[in-house]
Amino acid sequence: MSEAVLENPDSMVVKKPASYSHELDLTELLSPNKHDSALLILNQKIAIGKLFEKLWANYQVRICADGGANRLYEYFSHDVERSKFLPDYIVGDLDSVRDEILSFYLERGVTIIGQTSQYSTDFTKSLRLLSLHFYHAGFQQMVKANNFQENYGIDNCDGLFQLYKMNRASWNTRSINLMVLNAIDGRFDQTIHSITQLYTASKTDAYYRLCYLTSTDLIILVPTGGTLIRYDKQFKTQCIRNCGLLPLGGPTVINSTRGLKWDVSDWHTSIMEGKVSSSNRFVGEDCCYIDVKDPVVLNIELTLPKLHEFI
Amino acid sequence: MSEAVLENPDSMVVKKPASYSHELDLTELLSPNKHDSALLILNQKIAIGKLFEKLWANYQVRICADGGANRLYEYFSHDVERSKFLPDYIVGDLDSVRDEILSFYLERGVTIIGQTSQYSTDFTKSLRLLSLHFYHAGFQQMVKANNFQENYGIDNCDGLFQLYKMNRASWNTRSINLMVLNAIDGRFDQTIHSITQLYTASKTDAYYRLCYLTSTDLIILVPTGGTLIRYDKQFKTQCIRNCGLLPLGGPTVINSTRGLKWDVSDWHTSIMEGKVSSSNRFVGEDCCYIDVKDPVVLNIELTLPKLHEFI
Repeated sequence: MSEAVLENPDSMVVKKPASYSHELDLTELLSPNKHDSALLILNQKIAIGKLFEKLWANYQVRICADGGANRLYEYFSHDVERSKFLPDYIVGDLDSVRDEILSFYLERGVTIIGQTSQYSTDFTKSLRLLSLHFYHAGFQQMVKANNFQENYGIDNCDGLFQLYKMNRASWNTRSINLMVLNAIDGRFDQTIHSITQLYTASKTDAYYRLCYLTSTDLIILVPTGGTLIRYDKQFKTQCIRNCGLLPLGGPTVINSTRGLKWDVSDWHTSIMEGKVSSSNRFVGEDCCYIDVKDPVVLNIELTLPKLHEFI
Repeated sequence: MSEAVLENPDSMVVKKPASYSHELDLTELLSPNKHDSALLILNQKIAIGKLFEKLWANYQVRICADGGANRLYEYFSHDVERSKFLPDYIVGDLDSVRDEILSFYLERGVTIIGQTSQYSTDFTKSLRLLSLHFYHAGFQQMVKANNFQENYGIDNCDGLFQLYKMNRASWNTRSINLMVLNAIDGRFDQTIHSITQLYTASKTDAYYRLCYLTSTDLIILVPTGGTLIRYDKQFKTQCIRNCGLLPLGGPTVINSTRGLKWDVSDWHTSIMEGKVSSSNRFVGEDCCYIDVKDPVVLNIELTLPKLHEFI
């Protein structure tokens, strides 16, 4: 087979392949209707405007990683509003969250779990906590039965990781939609750390459907094999703009795509060689198909002000 | 040899190696004193505050890539100020720069070169233009002798690329400090396109000392081999914060580092495996040393408000 690039019209019908390994619905990622889902807030300014409140309502569990609690607090101007948007958890080494903000949430019953270990980041600690919350029998009960002074019965260095490590083999897992805010566009090594999490979580905690929303993009990992990405026709027309297939894990091959403005087949892609499909677009009316040799990062530019109507 | 990580004190004297392949001075990157240097403005909001005006004064040639001209214009509130900050060039397919802004700069003598080709980005077109400006005998004269209506005698599809391709073999090049603003933190595929430019320009146009400044970081490519990164002691104390060594070109090995908080040797690094040196720091008093098997991206977090005093 040889490399090929095909330029498509601006809209086309994509025939679904007879079989594919993965399926993904874009609006479901953004509005899981509280079913098995979590919203994680990291420590950057919340930059998605009023859409934040809409998203908040769509997820079952809300969690702030350390200084993420500052950003949630600062998003609102008054305590009355703040009290309506209380996270389920604040977790991390707690060196970034401000004391008065910690007190504010503590007084209102938020579970605040300190984990001093420097061998994992606040992002990773949050992933461990969510795994325990969703899958570990008795975890939620244990948290309720203890309090902040006792760190809810969790070793304050790396208790979450220990519990996770000891028990995960026995878990009967199901998919969790996990939306992370403020993962991208901060310090650049933190942006790239978030990208590494897409790759590592897909291996260690494959039950997460992990995605990042920025002020411009939805970012996900497209796994090895064929993935069908579905969306509503209207959603596509009104919300979806440019996209990129980004081989951030290393050089690889895009086996084939169907429904992109520039479809490729057997296409070698490499950042080091400057060969990356960027400024591409979804032109498939209600779906597109992407088959890759190794996982690649996909960013989809979204018109945020229009999202309100679809999620 | 086996992998090792060494935790260093917060400040240490780093002995310069007997020999090294590359040397880099951080303040020189930010203040080349107009000597063989250029400032390139891409199409994102200028997010570095008043530091922008200081930087502008430090570079010899200023260039806006297409909609970058909108961002330069919008940075100022009044035409009196705008008229003091006129770029030397605006280049690109000119589909993003607004008509009234194009007229504003045209009336004030700015050279505006259209290049409609869709086989290169506005960023790449800017690199070609700068190469011609600095190295191609007669290019500046040709631009002066023609005007906007004649596209300065340059084929309006891909004339810059043609001139570059035909002539570059004969150029006697010297290093050019090239600072790019707004390369990172926009649409994510554009951020990654900027990262590919670090890798590709280091091969095709090795004369550029290319760096990106964001609202949080200075971002450069550390080339293969040993690089000594020098800085002023005071600059380090007051401006430098965290850093990351990011293997965005693909998995590689960091042969050794000296003067980081967590120095490594023979350290395999990979985004796909989640093994990346992030949230590291420069602790070498006035330099640090990084030796890598393949080029890696280095981000250095800077305290922007303090930079004023050093550049």
